[in-house]
Amino acid sequence: MESITSASYAVHFNQNAYAVLEQHLTKKNYSKLFILVDTNTRRDCLPILKSRLRGKYDFEILEIIPGEENKNISTCTKAWEALSNLDADRKSLLINLGGGVVTDLGGFVASTFKRGISFINIPTTLLAMVDASVGGKTGVDLGPLKNQIGVINQPEMVLVVSEFLATLEVRQLNSGFAEMLKHGLIQDATYWKSLKLITDFVALDQLIYDSVIIKNKVVLQDPTEQGLRKILNYGHTLGHAIESYFLESTNHETLLHGEAIAIGMILEAYLSHHLTGLSEGSLEDIKSTFLGRYKKVRFSPSDIQNILSLLKFDKKNSHGNINFVLLHAIGKPAIDVKIPENLYKEAFAYYNGL
Amino acid sequence: MESITSASYAVHFNQNAYAVLEQHLTKKNYSKLFILVDTNTRRDCLPILKSRLRGKYDFEILEIIPGEENKNISTCTKAWEALSNLDADRKSLLINLGGGVVTDLGGFVASTFKRGISFINIPTTLLAMVDASVGGKTGVDLGPLKNQIGVINQPEMVLVVSEFLATLEVRQLNSGFAEMLKHGLIQDATYWKSLKLITDFVALDQLIYDSVIIKNKVVLQDPTEQGLRKILNYGHTLGHAIESYFLESTNHETLLHGEAIAIGMILEAYLSHHLTGLSEGSLEDIKSTFLGRYKKVRFSPSDIQNILSLLKFDKKNSHGNINFVLLHAIGKPAIDVKIPENLYKEAFAYYNGL
Repeated sequence: MESITSASYAVHFNQNAYAVLEQHLTKKNYSKLFILVDTNTRRDCLPILKSRLRGKYDFEILEIIPGEENKNISTCTKAWEALSNLDADRKSLLINLGGGVVTDLGGFVASTFKRGISFINIPTTLLAMVDASVGGKTGVDLGPLKNQIGVINQPEMVLVVSEFLATLEVRQLNSGFAEMLKHGLIQDATYWKSLKLITDFVALDQLIYDSVIIKNKVVLQDPTEQGLRKILNYGHTLGHAIESYFLESTNHETLLHGEAIAIGMILEAYLSHHLTGLSEGSLEDIKSTFLGRYKKVRFSPSDIQNILSLLKFDKKNSHGNINFVLLHAIGKPAIDVKIPENLYKEAFAYYNGL
Repeated sequence: MESITSASYAVHFNQNAYAVLEQHLTKKNYSKLFILVDTNTRRDCLPILKSRLRGKYDFEILEIIPGEENKNISTCTKAWEALSNLDADRKSLLINLGGGVVTDLGGFVASTFKRGISFINIPTTLLAMVDASVGGKTGVDLGPLKNQIGVINQPEMVLVVSEFLATLEVRQLNSGFAEMLKHGLIQDATYWKSLKLITDFVALDQLIYDSVIIKNKVVLQDPTEQGLRKILNYGHTLGHAIESYFLESTNHETLLHGEAIAIGMILEAYLSHHLTGLSEGSLEDIKSTFLGRYKKVRFSPSDIQNILSLLKFDKKNSHGNINFVLLHAIGKPAIDVKIPENLYKEAFAYYNGL
């Protein structure tokens, strides 16, 4: 599979990825090599990575506890201290081997340690492969607020190796699949249609590749999210608020990112039908696709109120306005849409009534 | 005084600075204006700043506790939370009004909040005016280790207004003066000579301007510190270690940054005399200039050992080597010099014997 060139680096796939990595390590002569893992990827993915490399390398392993609830500054501090204690210097390399928590947090840790060391991302979840592999977004949560602290900074390279997907449960795969469906909704009706036909996750290589291509095209046109890039937030304005609320709430089981934005995409499809001309048929299509794949949740009136109160922290906001990405049609996004107050509750009522 | 153009922004001076600031605020239409102060600058400098502005502005004030011991991630977290609670968005502006702790920490907080908001620095100490006003270094300490966490990112503009110096004690002014002397040592023997003649701090405007010019020239040639920019670290390799050690030690009074690097500059002049050809006369000149202005400290054998053990955390290190900036002569720096082990103790013995 051909490599995809992003901002200042490339995404390499499968067999080719390991070879490119080893050439890079030889060429760069880093002073020390660190691998950031979580408990799961240390057990399931690190042995695979090590077994695929032909050269001998002295990797220092930094391990964090898995889970969105650990994607915070306190985990960063532990990682910075570990790097410091293990004599990392500015010529050291950090390889982030894991899902979005590991790659987002590890990218931030590397970008800020001694004002920036090199890093490479090896996403091991479907979500991180299709979502975190391009764009240079790094960061951590601030309390329950997602990705409030971070920087935009590019890795040396990203390796997308689908063999790591075999280490995941179906629920995790489904979470990543929601981002792929989103890529169809915002840019490519044909891709959306082909994704809908997928009934198992055994041969995703080409679809992952297409997703990275779609996201990369958007990001390259607007690296700092002044305009177009905002479309990647479809489903995320309400989805992030739902995810944050469920993370903090004691009444609800935590949702995976893809599960939260699946709900966000139904709600925002409803808003799109009322505000930006999304047809009734497309609303129906979007709704039934996501309901068919993702767990339905029941929102109480107080849930809805709490979720809506979190919207003011959305990173796309400015001057007190909450800016939504909606759809004119499948594949045709609209940005910076303001929502009339009453429509929020209508959208939740629509979802609850499904 | 003419503005000085740095990387992507300009440094504006005195009367002109306030006018430029107001034009900028009008032009940019920020969603919210925040000013970061510490207890001292809130009391002494904020009223001056407000009284000089002709327009009416709604500033939200964020206050931190002064002192290097608060230049850490925990203070950043409080600042991020305050910004979040006060509804800061990506179009907000943070004005950092204070010494190096406020401008370094505030720059980092702004650069990482929602992946980066705009900031303006108004240094109020001599040290911050001549040292932190160009170069884009932001960051905080990790435990006692100075500036280990940060990014390089440029402010919208920097305002150097010498009237704030009237709020400082002489010890603080002397601390900044050490960095000015350093600028002479690494780039300009004539500037060094004119600084030595200064006996009070009443008319520093032109000398501050010259210092900013010197530093800016170096930074513009090497923004990411690959080579030349390292010369700004003269006196800092040992000076930072001394400063860190005194910050943690219960046996020693904390040193101001300039006081620590004044000692570092004597020690590194001794090393320069032995390794890079600095003449005996220049060593004598450097020694007597700093001893005449800065308090002499006594280092015990265990102090020296502890200080030397901190050198491995220096940000210029790579591949296990500690890289020094030394002098061939006053105004002629040498970079990436390695020090024979025995010479460290000799240098401290020389200093102790003065």
